[in-house]
Amino acid sequence: MIPYDQMTREDLLKEKESLVSAYKKYEKMELSLNMARGKPSVEQLDLSMGMLAPISHDEVIDVDSGMDVRNYGVLEGLEGAKKLLASMVSCDPNSVIVCGNSSLNVMYDQIARGFSFGYLGEKPWSKLKKVKWLCPVPGYDRHFSITEHFGFEMIPIPMNSDGPDMDLVEEYVKDDSVKGIWCVPKYSNPEGIVYSEEVVKRFANLKPAAKDFRIFWDNAYAVHYLYDEIEKQDQIPDILLECKKAGNPNLVFEFMSTSKISFSGSGISGVASSPENKKDIISSMTVQTIGYDKVNQLRHIKFFKDAAGIREHMKKHAKILRPKFLCVINTLERDLSGKNVGTWNNPNGGYFITFRTIPNVASKVVSMCFALGVTLTGAGAPFPYGQDPKDSVIRIAPSFPTLEELQTAMDVFTLCVRLATIDEILKK
Amino acid sequence: MIPYDQMTREDLLKEKESLVSAYKKYEKMELSLNMARGKPSVEQLDLSMGMLAPISHDEVIDVDSGMDVRNYGVLEGLEGAKKLLASMVSCDPNSVIVCGNSSLNVMYDQIARGFSFGYLGEKPWSKLKKVKWLCPVPGYDRHFSITEHFGFEMIPIPMNSDGPDMDLVEEYVKDDSVKGIWCVPKYSNPEGIVYSEEVVKRFANLKPAAKDFRIFWDNAYAVHYLYDEIEKQDQIPDILLECKKAGNPNLVFEFMSTSKISFSGSGISGVASSPENKKDIISSMTVQTIGYDKVNQLRHIKFFKDAAGIREHMKKHAKILRPKFLCVINTLERDLSGKNVGTWNNPNGGYFITFRTIPNVASKVVSMCFALGVTLTGAGAPFPYGQDPKDSVIRIAPSFPTLEELQTAMDVFTLCVRLATIDEILKK
Repeated sequence: MIPYDQMTREDLLKEKESLVSAYKKYEKMELSLNMARGKPSVEQLDLSMGMLAPISHDEVIDVDSGMDVRNYGVLEGLEGAKKLLASMVSCDPNSVIVCGNSSLNVMYDQIARGFSFGYLGEKPWSKLKKVKWLCPVPGYDRHFSITEHFGFEMIPIPMNSDGPDMDLVEEYVKDDSVKGIWCVPKYSNPEGIVYSEEVVKRFANLKPAAKDFRIFWDNAYAVHYLYDEIEKQDQIPDILLECKKAGNPNLVFEFMSTSKISFSGSGISGVASSPENKKDIISSMTVQTIGYDKVNQLRHIKFFKDAAGIREHMKKHAKILRPKFLCVINTLERDLSGKNVGTWNNPNGGYFITFRTIPNVASKVVSMCFALGVTLTGAGAPFPYGQDPKDSVIRIAPSFPTLEELQTAMDVFTLCVRLATIDEILKK
Repeated sequence: MIPYDQMTREDLLKEKESLVSAYKKYEKMELSLNMARGKPSVEQLDLSMGMLAPISHDEVIDVDSGMDVRNYGVLEGLEGAKKLLASMVSCDPNSVIVCGNSSLNVMYDQIARGFSFGYLGEKPWSKLKKVKWLCPVPGYDRHFSITEHFGFEMIPIPMNSDGPDMDLVEEYVKDDSVKGIWCVPKYSNPEGIVYSEEVVKRFANLKPAAKDFRIFWDNAYAVHYLYDEIEKQDQIPDILLECKKAGNPNLVFEFMSTSKISFSGSGISGVASSPENKKDIISSMTVQTIGYDKVNQLRHIKFFKDAAGIREHMKKHAKILRPKFLCVINTLERDLSGKNVGTWNNPNGGYFITFRTIPNVASKVVSMCFALGVTLTGAGAPFPYGQDPKDSVIRIAPSFPTLEELQTAMDVFTLCVRLATIDEILKK
């Protein structure tokens, strides 16, 4: 097989012709398929129906605190829920505050606190002329929306295969207007990259100029393995412990969530940090709310019990997700390998596969797919301000469609990649 | 009976002696009773155990949207939940956004949005030198904590028997640094006052100098009647409609919550406002969260069904609360009436009874009660910065203790009122 970029113009046009006729076939099918968001499938949601079992009168008294979970109180959350969340990211349960149904909201709140009140007595960011934020790219669009909403200047940091470019991070934090960085350290959104031990340790040992610089460590996919083999279950060091060892205990906020473990939008979430940071958060949280939903915390404790319970449950998710990831990978291999039309990753966990087209082609592929009824995440979304400088990154979210739908969607996808790439080559 | 303030010094000392011996009796009892917070009793929480019934697979698809409530989506909340919340305060369901488990958090967020981003294109309050806030007093301490946390200057507005002093409110809003007012319009915390139709209409017709002045209408006790007789079930006009009629559609945010209807801390809450304000809120909310807990919204729709369901449920709460309120009122009557030692209100709804001592006595009463093991809300709490200028207001929250405990607590309370009042009179 001759790669597209080495084909003659004539051969390319011939190839295009056959692709166009396939395209026309799909046009008639009026498809409506969605690979845009990391939404669990119905089959996955069904795994947690036990969470909707009744709670009896005997169960409403929390075993640790003796408190009635149906009433006000216990701002930090139930001990059992702290232990459960801590077990997911292997941190100390005492460092955890259990929050509501959305870890995104917890991150938003934590940035809002820096903005409105300042961390540990530092000046609130609202009083500063300029706040800058480091954004490893490609990254999670909803992270970037938060920092954009607060008016921070976002600085893209390229990702390497073992995490963000730490030379650059170490350089940027010398600027005291740089106040934070977004990180998804394990099975990153969208590339599924796992930060190496070295990267984690370099993070823990950062010496930022700003005392109120914080790492926002969104450990959203900590237990989201796709494979049961232990060697494919990547592990990263406990960032809280590493920061403590490095003499930087207050450097990090770690976030966790059961959104893609139990129910999306009806799970529990948490933030973990040093005792000093935790006290600072609680002092503001106590004004903000009387407390989070403890009945839902109880449901999670009852249903999962402990780390082993979560592990077994995640194996069931993996069993559903694995064939979908393989479908994506296999279709990309089948249709695109050897053609020099793009590259892709093959992650061991998480929710996404990232496809990189040749430059200037990604947004074209997304619109062509959309025209055929296949919705992808908007091109550019994984970048600050929605701007992908090379217009080459596409995030594929295979979780929601059925396997059959996914196969059709991927057939459409690879077709559009080939067509758009040929058009781009022919332009030159 | 001779009122204390008309007794001779000798008679007062004699009265004190007999009270002191009663005090000593209580000292030995090592009581531990709490009338501090508006917490529902266990018996009340038990009324909603049906909320913890299982949810079946057939029920997880929302009838209105066709959405699976277990998955992401429907940022504004389920239609059924909007209708339920709207029915409680008699507003248009389309004006409602359903939020999480804490209406306090919704109010906090709404103030935070004014502070960080500004309403409808107005300058964010964080950029202003001075923000002032009107605080009807006595009021809800957690309201005041929020405005204090954001550094606003709080201006106390005296309450009349039909709501805040509107002459003063109308005067203050001429100052464009005055950006808002806290209101609990029905069965106010702590006095149980119901705003009159005239007061509501004067609110709706305010002409504030600041375009971003907002009324924070915390309609927390809208359906919290203590009596089944219709003439004791006070009604107030729909503030949203009144604002619209007055040509001030954007003037108000109305808040509602099921915290004291279903479970405290595991209910649902909402904010209602004009289409323009709603759009403004959603544009920020969409950055803050992927959505609120729709499974819990479904639980509420299932359990209460509609306005009639809420009404029947609230009658059950009233049946439990009524004897407690009567216990407080009767004990105050029995021990304090005719003594000129204080006044109290006898509300038709809500969660609190307010007692007013003679000046300089409230904090003494609270500490004396505390010394005997009876915890009351801190004196001063219902005022901005915790400062009651006359030191005379005490909030009594009768809901949590059993009737027997409450009787003992009230016996202690009236004893301490009498003792502290005599001490104060003797000082002169």
